Amino acid sequence: MDLVTVRELYKNREAYLDKEVSIGGWVRSVRASKAFGFIVVSDGTYFETLQVVYHDTMANFAEISKLNVGAAIIVKGTLVATPDAKQPFEIQATEVSVEGPSAPDYPLQKKRHTLEYLRTITHLRPRTNTFQAVFRVRSLIAYAIHQYFQERDFVYVHTPLITGSDCEGAGEMFQVTTMDLNNIPKNEDGSVDYTKDFFAKPTNLTVSGQLNGETYAMAFRNIYTFGPTFRAENSNTTRHAAEFWMIEPEMAFADLEDNMEVAEGMLKYVIRYVLEHAPEEMAFFNNFIDKGLLDRLNNVVNSEFGRVTYTEAVKILEEHNDQFDYKVSWGCDLQTEHERFLTEQIFKKPVFVTDYPKEIKAFYMKMNPDGKTVAAVDCLVPGIGEIIGGSQREDSLEKLAARMDELGLKKEDYQFYLDLRKYGSARHSGFGLGFERCVMYLTGMGNIRDVIPFPRTVGNCDL
Amino acid sequence: MDLVTVRELYKNREAYLDKEVSIGGWVRSVRASKAFGFIVVSDGTYFETLQVVYHDTMANFAEISKLNVGAAIIVKGTLVATPDAKQPFEIQATEVSVEGPSAPDYPLQKKRHTLEYLRTITHLRPRTNTFQAVFRVRSLIAYAIHQYFQERDFVYVHTPLITGSDCEGAGEMFQVTTMDLNNIPKNEDGSVDYTKDFFAKPTNLTVSGQLNGETYAMAFRNIYTFGPTFRAENSNTTRHAAEFWMIEPEMAFADLEDNMEVAEGMLKYVIRYVLEHAPEEMAFFNNFIDKGLLDRLNNVVNSEFGRVTYTEAVKILEEHNDQFDYKVSWGCDLQTEHERFLTEQIFKKPVFVTDYPKEIKAFYMKMNPDGKTVAAVDCLVPGIGEIIGGSQREDSLEKLAARMDELGLKKEDYQFYLDLRKYGSARHSGFGLGFERCVMYLTGMGNIRDVIPFPRTVGNCDL
Repeated sequence: MDLVTVRELYKNREAYLDKEVSIGGWVRSVRASKAFGFIVVSDGTYFETLQVVYHDTMANFAEISKLNVGAAIIVKGTLVATPDAKQPFEIQATEVSVEGPSAPDYPLQKKRHTLEYLRTITHLRPRTNTFQAVFRVRSLIAYAIHQYFQERDFVYVHTPLITGSDCEGAGEMFQVTTMDLNNIPKNEDGSVDYTKDFFAKPTNLTVSGQLNGETYAMAFRNIYTFGPTFRAENSNTTRHAAEFWMIEPEMAFADLEDNMEVAEGMLKYVIRYVLEHAPEEMAFFNNFIDKGLLDRLNNVVNSEFGRVTYTEAVKILEEHNDQFDYKVSWGCDLQTEHERFLTEQIFKKPVFVTDYPKEIKAFYMKMNPDGKTVAAVDCLVPGIGEIIGGSQREDSLEKLAARMDELGLKKEDYQFYLDLRKYGSARHSGFGLGFERCVMYLTGMGNIRDVIPFPRTVGNCDL
Repeated sequence: MDLVTVRELYKNREAYLDKEVSIGGWVRSVRASKAFGFIVVSDGTYFETLQVVYHDTMANFAEISKLNVGAAIIVKGTLVATPDAKQPFEIQATEVSVEGPSAPDYPLQKKRHTLEYLRTITHLRPRTNTFQAVFRVRSLIAYAIHQYFQERDFVYVHTPLITGSDCEGAGEMFQVTTMDLNNIPKNEDGSVDYTKDFFAKPTNLTVSGQLNGETYAMAFRNIYTFGPTFRAENSNTTRHAAEFWMIEPEMAFADLEDNMEVAEGMLKYVIRYVLEHAPEEMAFFNNFIDKGLLDRLNNVVNSEFGRVTYTEAVKILEEHNDQFDYKVSWGCDLQTEHERFLTEQIFKKPVFVTDYPKEIKAFYMKMNPDGKTVAAVDCLVPGIGEIIGGSQREDSLEKLAARMDELGLKKEDYQFYLDLRKYGSARHSGFGLGFERCVMYLTGMGNIRDVIPFPRTVGNCDL
């Protein structure tokens, strides 16, 4: 079909003004008088709408005038400049054909709907302004992340979703099976007979691609993953979903400093990309969702991120313990209130906190010479707290094995991971960025359910 | 760490020649004489290796000379041109430090290993030439696909992985659960008590994002998905995996013709991108994996794809029935032998086959005026057969509902999908590209297990 997009009309208006154009889109509103009427149309390709003027010279004038919100139409006409109006141009229609009407009970009307209500109609909410903005920006962020890493020759690795290992705590994982739950095959001793399952063993949905990603970093030097991860956490908060996407870069011959440089570069790159490619959407968020958003993001782009060790950060925070619900002392994990205090009140910009106590971090993080802390790093940003978590990885076979013994981890489950330290080990580092948290950060949206097209949370798996 | 990549040395050699550089990488081979030696190093960023020359003036000359294949080293030295050698330059080392040795039982040696053997060490195989080439090209193809759609302002939609619907046949799906399989909660009647499961109902891993994708096409006009899909098929072939990635574009105000244009444009774009960005890898595939590869791909890029209806195609094929294992007649599904005959023998280029009998296609495809065929399209390519399958979707609420009744599908399970036809229905089309099949096509690799970093097939879920 020879239809121009509304985006194209806005971006290259000079090429279309005073020419005949055809567009297809959905009715946002119709105002009709006796002799003529106005239709506001969105075709979903651009945040701004397009006004169409039509006249009673058309045979279907009455039909058009009665169109409900949401109807699909195809409009043919001349694009004319409207120097005195709010919008820069409109279509003087010669033909409006109804592609598909919208039934009278259409759940979206011109009034503003609550985000809660819109969550009940996930298949229709992307037709609203807010979700047009959210999901276009989500798409742009995803692409910006790919572009950032690909321009730097990182190899995109698809780590597996279904996994036979349960590296980070089986309690929070989803099990994957093809066995009939009404009739589970059993061994003689009554236990589940997994030889009858699809993979002939218990399998789960992954919680992280990191360990797999490391194997590829030790082959390609610089890699990144970008894929779904899962948590079966029974937590009903605005920041947790059972299914979400993660970006996990991993770099060989890279220390914690390199890790921070890549993380800082990535965040700034993505923010700049979105500000440049979705100015209308970002202005909308700033006006209607989160008033300080643009100032905050511009500040991030233009500031050098702060650096502070965990030990220093705890000293700073202890002086303000009267302001916290949860008092800080060395050894405790930092809560969101502490993280936000550091980045918002102390540094007033994003800050990397490094070198955490080994007890509160994962087994694979590189032990520092002090024997007490590990080369971990969290990136804290104003308005959110932690957005990135990473570390330099333990590259010594002996130290890694000793730490696994300390924690009671079975080495036979991690043989491939130990092999990376046995055959050509190299210092290496990586981090994880929760994609949805990044989308929330860039849009100001407050609930993770509103930045995922079809969110999955405890008790909810619609569509 | 201030290490330059081998890729950077090759791409911008003029900037580095006769200067001091430092690189980190892994030993491919060491040849030592009494006074000096050569190390061939790969750092994984570039398909070509780098030669390092070192001398007995170094304190660790003996240690270096005994390095095993796979050891990680950091080399400092001067990059010098070698006009008389095969390689364009080498590093005259002043320092070689061992980052991590490689144990004597390193499973990869300089000799050629079989692909079957390498499948048993999925964590190490990306260090070989073949898999360096495969997985870099896989990454480039993924990015090229994003770039193609993003340049055209398609919105990237993350459709859900865990799904409560079982649209395309529950028998082939993986079930997702948090219930303890040793102790399944039961109702009084003995059936599974799904109120105790995480989502309070049975859930599966998705087999396609299409239906969800359609809801977003009816909001953004042009969208695409790119994510994992799953099939619990018990088929042990070279072309089936239980977990694979799919790209599913969906376009509103687009008919079958538009669909074919986008599909043809995408394939050509991706091929061109890879030929341009991975010439060394593509030459390797052409020389060692699939002799006719480059000719075939160049032919695809430079030809206009053929078009033929299913009915015409059957007429053509019937004339050659003596050459087929499975004889063709109108109404039968085309087998790979037929598809390849059409594209390789008859058209000698890629060909779109359109308008298949409704009986062999999905319920959502648009009925043609003949009442017998639907507006489906498969794209067949030489060497593979079907690589893309798509259709115009049925946009009439009545026709879709009638077809669902005919097939015994429950309308209450598809209410959201019917809503798209009730509220502003518009003609729309889309297709699905199996990502791994695309990687196989562009690399000439013959087994899907060799184009997936950590393949999942029946009975296999390692790492």
